[in-house]
Amino acid sequence: MPVGLSEPDVIFPIAGIKLAAVAAGIKKNGKDDLVVLVFDEQATCAATFTQNAFCAAPVILAKKYLALQPRALLINSGNANAGTGETGLQNAEKSCQWLADSLQISAEQVLPFSTGVIGEQLPMSVMQSGIPQVVENLSEDNWLSAAKGIMTTDTIAKAASRRISLGGETITISGIAKGSGMICPNMATMLAFIATDADIEPNCLQHCLSDVVEDSFNSITVDGDTSTNDACVLVATAAANNKRLNLDSTDTAKFSQALNEICQQLAQAIVRDAEGATKFVTVEILQAKSKSEAKNVAYTISHSPLVKTALFASDPNWGRILAAVGRADIKQLDISKINIYLDQVCIVTSGGVDENYTEEQGQEVMNQQEIKIKVELGRGCHSASLWTSDLSHEYVRINSEYRS
Amino acid sequence: MPVGLSEPDVIFPIAGIKLAAVAAGIKKNGKDDLVVLVFDEQATCAATFTQNAFCAAPVILAKKYLALQPRALLINSGNANAGTGETGLQNAEKSCQWLADSLQISAEQVLPFSTGVIGEQLPMSVMQSGIPQVVENLSEDNWLSAAKGIMTTDTIAKAASRRISLGGETITISGIAKGSGMICPNMATMLAFIATDADIEPNCLQHCLSDVVEDSFNSITVDGDTSTNDACVLVATAAANNKRLNLDSTDTAKFSQALNEICQQLAQAIVRDAEGATKFVTVEILQAKSKSEAKNVAYTISHSPLVKTALFASDPNWGRILAAVGRADIKQLDISKINIYLDQVCIVTSGGVDENYTEEQGQEVMNQQEIKIKVELGRGCHSASLWTSDLSHEYVRINSEYRS
Repeated sequence: MPVGLSEPDVIFPIAGIKLAAVAAGIKKNGKDDLVVLVFDEQATCAATFTQNAFCAAPVILAKKYLALQPRALLINSGNANAGTGETGLQNAEKSCQWLADSLQISAEQVLPFSTGVIGEQLPMSVMQSGIPQVVENLSEDNWLSAAKGIMTTDTIAKAASRRISLGGETITISGIAKGSGMICPNMATMLAFIATDADIEPNCLQHCLSDVVEDSFNSITVDGDTSTNDACVLVATAAANNKRLNLDSTDTAKFSQALNEICQQLAQAIVRDAEGATKFVTVEILQAKSKSEAKNVAYTISHSPLVKTALFASDPNWGRILAAVGRADIKQLDISKINIYLDQVCIVTSGGVDENYTEEQGQEVMNQQEIKIKVELGRGCHSASLWTSDLSHEYVRINSEYRS
Repeated sequence: MPVGLSEPDVIFPIAGIKLAAVAAGIKKNGKDDLVVLVFDEQATCAATFTQNAFCAAPVILAKKYLALQPRALLINSGNANAGTGETGLQNAEKSCQWLADSLQISAEQVLPFSTGVIGEQLPMSVMQSGIPQVVENLSEDNWLSAAKGIMTTDTIAKAASRRISLGGETITISGIAKGSGMICPNMATMLAFIATDADIEPNCLQHCLSDVVEDSFNSITVDGDTSTNDACVLVATAAANNKRLNLDSTDTAKFSQALNEICQQLAQAIVRDAEGATKFVTVEILQAKSKSEAKNVAYTISHSPLVKTALFASDPNWGRILAAVGRADIKQLDISKINIYLDQVCIVTSGGVDENYTEEQGQEVMNQQEIKIKVELGRGCHSASLWTSDLSHEYVRINSEYRS
């Protein structure tokens, strides 16, 4: 059960974008597994990709094709096409070619994306028969079915949508994402596809995306395992009538703010639907010497199996948080300056248990579904926030039965 | 159930060392929880301690007292005396004083050690009444009960013992250790106490210990959580008649080799008895550019919840190993040079699945209780080995019910 997350209600369509999903037969459970998203000729496209050195075949292709005026995204779930060598690359290329033939564009204008089991080849006959079916169903209104079609161990579709006014013209941003395990994006994300009808210069579009990804998708972790297939794509169709945005436009900040809200909502949705999650946890580190130091401490707490099992048990075992801060390898950490809070409850003051703290206060916070762990390091003025989940029996069950 | 580990059979006594354990009442389950180890005046003592910045009160004291000719170790289980501030320090000092009074030595000659729950004060009346009881029971033959007395979530006592000949004289080394969770020692270990009757110069003793700890206790991980209380102590009583060892003695290498065997046996015993472990896994990284690069890759694999749950499921899901290698942040990693093996079975050749690999071969290895994951990076001549365990339902159960 996702934590504080329900089925998306409104996903505004984006003028200039058509999409569809079908059950081609890649997933064994008969659910939708093949998604296509097609955009008008004048659209521009920005993307960020996984930093995992073992990146999947579709990621290798998509990185190469990104500069060649993309016109479509081809996304399959149920198979990651990762660790599949030269054959995997050829299969990705062939799939792009099939979609390109259907759409009368060139194969290099199709960006491929895959998510699912690593190390198995794509079922090519299924891809070949599925692609024309999905093209037949293309429409502006299929955002929800596309959100469902990219799911793997996700239990719920993830989408976010905003309308804002730029210089008197309304523009729309809509996005979908998937992911609930193998989540620790590094300069990228799990699969997320965002589109807007705003008119934006390509370098400005990429700048906005890279900037926003850092504090959204790159600030979540479920299990510390960075995927081989992470990618986040932002398409701008320029169908709206706003004055074209560039890096100097005052409206760019406004666009960036709305994009940031979309990306944070999608990123948090991934954590809320994390494998086996029963808690949604914000880890906030304050008073660090640098942003990277703050992130390091936040990740150390978020990845600690002992902190995560204590969260699952609703056990205010703050000693585990303290031990995690202590092993984060911060040079010359002065523990006598550290304060730790659970929500508003101060647990640790100056490195020791706060004299007013009672177990009941900690228990009350821990019983909640949504919890904030806040740590003040007393070393500087930098901060970072991460969102993470707990470690439950269900996580172990899902990941020990994944291929059976 | 520990993996391939049974109750210690022979633990040779060490001339010049007496020890005992009693159930003072710190543990709620009524088991032994207070251990004292006393050594003769001419004994020397070496130790390594946790690098966690939040080190526990007894660790702070033991580090300070180590240079002051220690004569006794006072060890309690059931309470870590960590995160307990100034009161915790005073309680540790008071406990040392009580033992010192019983033994007619000074408080600074007692090294204190604690293990158990973090963040609760020591039950001082229990300590005060327990210490005289344990002193009454001191004898040369209590190694096994001491090994049991220092256990917390351990399911089995851990000990190792060797006799070797140095220049025609027989010397003995015996050691005990505890630990099965919060295990990722950093330049130290969980609690391990080793004694020898060999005659060794103090600086040589410390050198031997620091050297050996790196490839034994510092090469194991259960959950990546470095404890606040880790410590490893080596006492040499000089009761044997060997020619005094120093850094130049040819026999020092022989002693070091036996000590290394003891420490590796104890370190592996901790992993075999890891919380919820069903597998004992050796992770060996070869052809790295440096030892630290090799260790980094080994830790990334060993800490991956996805690799650990696949091990629990006996699932040869090698894609998760490959993804972990890829995210280990090795600069300019050329994946086309990487080979991965499960025991003797080659799974990945040149970054892709080996053409002769079959799922049945991988399954056969994964069904074993003891598995070796071997990765060749194709970058250099350095290597590292780690020992680790899997992530099971039992791990989550133990750590979510720890304080209840």
